[in-house]
Amino acid sequence: MRTPAQTRQIVLASRPQGWPTPENFRLETVDLPAPAEGQVVVANHVMSVDPYMRGRMNDVKSYVPPFQVDRPLDGSAVGEVVASASPDVHVGQIVLHGLGWREHAVVPAAAVTVVDATAAPESAYLGVLGMTGLTAYAGLMAAARFRPGDTVFVSGAAGAVGSLVGQIAKLSGAARVIGSAGSPAKVARLRELGFDEAFNYHDGPVRDLLRAAAPDGIDVYFDNVGGDHLEAAIDSLTTGGRVCLCGAISQYNSTEPPAAPRNLALAIGKELTLQGFLVGGHRKLMPEFHAKVVGWLADGSLRWDETVREGLDAAPQAFIDLLAGANTGKMVVRL
Amino acid sequence: MRTPAQTRQIVLASRPQGWPTPENFRLETVDLPAPAEGQVVVANHVMSVDPYMRGRMNDVKSYVPPFQVDRPLDGSAVGEVVASASPDVHVGQIVLHGLGWREHAVVPAAAVTVVDATAAPESAYLGVLGMTGLTAYAGLMAAARFRPGDTVFVSGAAGAVGSLVGQIAKLSGAARVIGSAGSPAKVARLRELGFDEAFNYHDGPVRDLLRAAAPDGIDVYFDNVGGDHLEAAIDSLTTGGRVCLCGAISQYNSTEPPAAPRNLALAIGKELTLQGFLVGGHRKLMPEFHAKVVGWLADGSLRWDETVREGLDAAPQAFIDLLAGANTGKMVVRL
Repeated sequence: MRTPAQTRQIVLASRPQGWPTPENFRLETVDLPAPAEGQVVVANHVMSVDPYMRGRMNDVKSYVPPFQVDRPLDGSAVGEVVASASPDVHVGQIVLHGLGWREHAVVPAAAVTVVDATAAPESAYLGVLGMTGLTAYAGLMAAARFRPGDTVFVSGAAGAVGSLVGQIAKLSGAARVIGSAGSPAKVARLRELGFDEAFNYHDGPVRDLLRAAAPDGIDVYFDNVGGDHLEAAIDSLTTGGRVCLCGAISQYNSTEPPAAPRNLALAIGKELTLQGFLVGGHRKLMPEFHAKVVGWLADGSLRWDETVREGLDAAPQAFIDLLAGANTGKMVVRL
Repeated sequence: MRTPAQTRQIVLASRPQGWPTPENFRLETVDLPAPAEGQVVVANHVMSVDPYMRGRMNDVKSYVPPFQVDRPLDGSAVGEVVASASPDVHVGQIVLHGLGWREHAVVPAAAVTVVDATAAPESAYLGVLGMTGLTAYAGLMAAARFRPGDTVFVSGAAGAVGSLVGQIAKLSGAARVIGSAGSPAKVARLRELGFDEAFNYHDGPVRDLLRAAAPDGIDVYFDNVGGDHLEAAIDSLTTGGRVCLCGAISQYNSTEPPAAPRNLALAIGKELTLQGFLVGGHRKLMPEFHAKVVGWLADGSLRWDETVREGLDAAPQAFIDLLAGANTGKMVVRL
């Protein structure tokens, strides 16, 4: 494979107000430099679009720096090294790195991770074997302090993280696992994945749907959604219940503050723990997570859904659709 | 002291809708029986009114059973044993027990705690040396996982629990302690008690007042108030910050769900912990708490405010006034 003189990338054309639109993104062709000392050039094969990227499109201080207008976006990607000025990483190796949203990435060799593309599909390293999977595992085990016998509720359960949370909970001894999703097809998929109960949150007030699905209450809530889902969970949590606050996709495009949860004071009498969670602080769990997941994948007990879009041009719409729930499982873009 | 044939008690005449009124209470004269085997009769000297009692006036399932209409209220009280049919507790002893809101209580001897009324005023066993003090100590140490060097914010800081939280934090090595209260006199009192900063929450949006008082943020929030105080604290908490959810007095009389906090999703990126707290599960900390508090009281480093009302007739209004913030420190009724 030769290194082209030019390549293409997606830049943030303007900051979204509320829901992002295609106009907030721009496809650019730029020169591709040769690698400087210690750098490699990667031809990206597959890139990740993730809900947290929405937050980075706002100009606010947060746990990751905001994207800059007229600068390329970034995010996890896997690709093949096509040029190397490093003794540590070789042309032809498949690597995971942080410069997605572009067809070719110039990356310090120290910032790439060589992956075994014969052991799993390349995209798995963006998902079930990567930070997505660790988010599910560490959020459940460390933040929500899962215990065998727990009844677990997860929202956004047909998403990349949520579908793993439910399956990992079952595989780890949960008494019951309940999931919410946004379409009948997704609900059906959750039942195939082994969820004991699943509901479409469009079918009524989440509080009522959750009470019907978990009449004896829930012990753990893994929150990907926020808002009325979190309010419903606070209502249904048993004494000593635990919440992993992992995401709030219902609010990412809101221009108004959310109206829920309005019942947080119930956390006092039920002695609930609500734990805000970022995966970054839990990398030490990676070996334990990896060992378990590889085993579960090998024996077929853990299943992994992907929604794949084709071509860098499709990346902005893939991201917009992700926020609207068009994915089942991990949304990736194949370049 | 002789046991009278009759005594007086306060019963719940009707359940409050929103703010309680004097009409929700009724003073009754009832026969006072002789103690049955194993019982004692206590002439109550001083009784507690506490914010949590408001919740018990609603007919909802909670961590304590609701008060019953036309039945006497209850709560902590200290008094003198005036009749005993138990070999374990003697006439003349001063005891702490759970049947306040009445002039005489007939109590199982096993349910009273003999206190040393020469070591501290009787009312101290309702407050600084009792569950109020333990609430402050355990909420700060166990629920909020206080660490020396923390900047601590406490709301309702001139109240019985809040004033102890702030002082205990300072005595335990807090870098800074900030309190909110509802009047200039209370704010002045907080400064006398050693709070580094204090503000009157009527002076503007709590968020702005807290930012001004703690420009570098807070590490711990001890919440007695809920609502916009909690929202302001979530805004100001640093990464890894911890909240003890102890009370929500701003909401106890609300007939509408609260509009705040609307920023709970910030807990994700800041990895906040919100811990619902009831003192009941932390009685094992009582010896450690007691040893520290007795020392601090003895050397004058911990100060303890009381607001005292006189006579059983005054108890309903004392409780109503407590909910409106008429107290500085512990509100008690002397019978």
